[in-house]
Amino acid sequence: MVGTVMKVGSDVKKFKVGERVGVGVIVGSCKKCESCQQDLENYCPQTIFTYNSHYTDGTKTYGGYSDMIVVDERYVLRFPDNLPSEGGAPLLCAGITVYSPMKYYGMTEPGKHLGVAGLGGLGHVAVKMGKAFGLKVTVISSSPKKETEAIERLGADSFLVTSDPAKMKAALGTMDYIIDTVSAVHPLLPLLSLLKLNGKLVTVGLPDKPLELPIFPLVLGRKLVGGSDIGGMKETQEMLDFCAKHGITADVEVIRMDYINTAMERLAKSDVRYRFVIDVASSLSQ
Amino acid sequence: MVGTVMKVGSDVKKFKVGERVGVGVIVGSCKKCESCQQDLENYCPQTIFTYNSHYTDGTKTYGGYSDMIVVDERYVLRFPDNLPSEGGAPLLCAGITVYSPMKYYGMTEPGKHLGVAGLGGLGHVAVKMGKAFGLKVTVISSSPKKETEAIERLGADSFLVTSDPAKMKAALGTMDYIIDTVSAVHPLLPLLSLLKLNGKLVTVGLPDKPLELPIFPLVLGRKLVGGSDIGGMKETQEMLDFCAKHGITADVEVIRMDYINTAMERLAKSDVRYRFVIDVASSLSQ
Repeated sequence: MVGTVMKVGSDVKKFKVGERVGVGVIVGSCKKCESCQQDLENYCPQTIFTYNSHYTDGTKTYGGYSDMIVVDERYVLRFPDNLPSEGGAPLLCAGITVYSPMKYYGMTEPGKHLGVAGLGGLGHVAVKMGKAFGLKVTVISSSPKKETEAIERLGADSFLVTSDPAKMKAALGTMDYIIDTVSAVHPLLPLLSLLKLNGKLVTVGLPDKPLELPIFPLVLGRKLVGGSDIGGMKETQEMLDFCAKHGITADVEVIRMDYINTAMERLAKSDVRYRFVIDVASSLSQ
Repeated sequence: MVGTVMKVGSDVKKFKVGERVGVGVIVGSCKKCESCQQDLENYCPQTIFTYNSHYTDGTKTYGGYSDMIVVDERYVLRFPDNLPSEGGAPLLCAGITVYSPMKYYGMTEPGKHLGVAGLGGLGHVAVKMGKAFGLKVTVISSSPKKETEAIERLGADSFLVTSDPAKMKAALGTMDYIIDTVSAVHPLLPLLSLLKLNGKLVTVGLPDKPLELPIFPLVLGRKLVGGSDIGGMKETQEMLDFCAKHGITADVEVIRMDYINTAMERLAKSDVRYRFVIDVASSLSQ
């Protein structure tokens, strides 16, 4: 969520009333564990998530479905002036989820070739970030109708349909990195086969069943499959600043509160490019 | 194989007659590809393996089953003076297979905790190397009877039986790295669960079927599963020098040629600690 600071507590140092700020997926953590001390609050075992979680007093967290929120300054982000609230808000989740693994796994070397598997909320931001890092970006999708979208609207260099054996074969061993945003159960072998020697496949989707992992391509090509889960507060700020610098926003459809149920139905059909953003303030002012 | 240089060609620069040298898993590669140019001959698409492979003229390679061999000096290794031939020979395969991923994946930080899954030819060398790098080493095995062996003979710090749920539970999230040497199809979840945040599981075994890869632990713990296949010539030399410096050899049973068929039968039953080494010279001199 993105909004304006209305009040600050007496110990608050980072923010002043009137500043535009963001709150992402996390509103609390233990602050003491090894993860918290390394600015990896996202991996703290006591993380309090912004929605569907509980504060330490047992109160449920409701995320952005409210007209105000009280948040510890540690979990609040400066929102750069030139980053619009609407297109910037989803970066607090989708943006950091793809930015963090790109940095951690070393997937940002200019000129390298990034595959983005799945073109949705996470994937479309990954394409934009990949281009900002100076990578060659190929969208890998099961849906041929996304080609124009991927290349013309999002700026991908090429597009690969997984159901086209000839094109998949021609692309074997051509990619340095793949970000796999697909949450459905899917085979890893076709993706691993697209990677070069030392290639890295990072999964940020969460399939609910184990995937089949063929070991031969991993061993014979010294490839790796890694995971990553959102990011810490420091890195989330870095990501927002990076996006502001490179003009990266999420593609969004802004809706009002009374449209939420319809939006949820459309979401279930993946009928949105690529994130709904609720304009809470203007919904409430009428 | 380890032996003595009998002759050198006129262009040979690295070796002289009489020197003790080793030849590992590779006797040829294209020398031109990206892998070869980065001293990663082991990942060259045209690698000629020392056994069960073919030279460019079609001749079959027979490995150490011969009294002499002609090898391009690029694929010949200096054998350090204090490294015995018998215990040193298996390092040319088992040693480099575990040393290379430890270096590549950054699994050598002193004080970190290494799990070695499977205690055989590869595993027992991994234990010794782990200790030489200053790691805490735990052997992870399905066989409780290997505990004394692991700790008293090989110097592991602890031993974990995968069939003991209480001990497996107590060890959850305690390891920084795991080298998985198990070639049988086996579940990855118990191993991934032993890893801390940012933990790395590297597989060097080659199960013939895909393994089940649960994605949640990968994502929620930013863990990775990687592979690695032997090593290049430069790194193999580095590994031999490292072993010589730290007094690391493979535990071997030296046999004569006429014992090979029996040895093969015992090998099929894993009845060897941990590698057979054939003394070709003395077998032939009688």
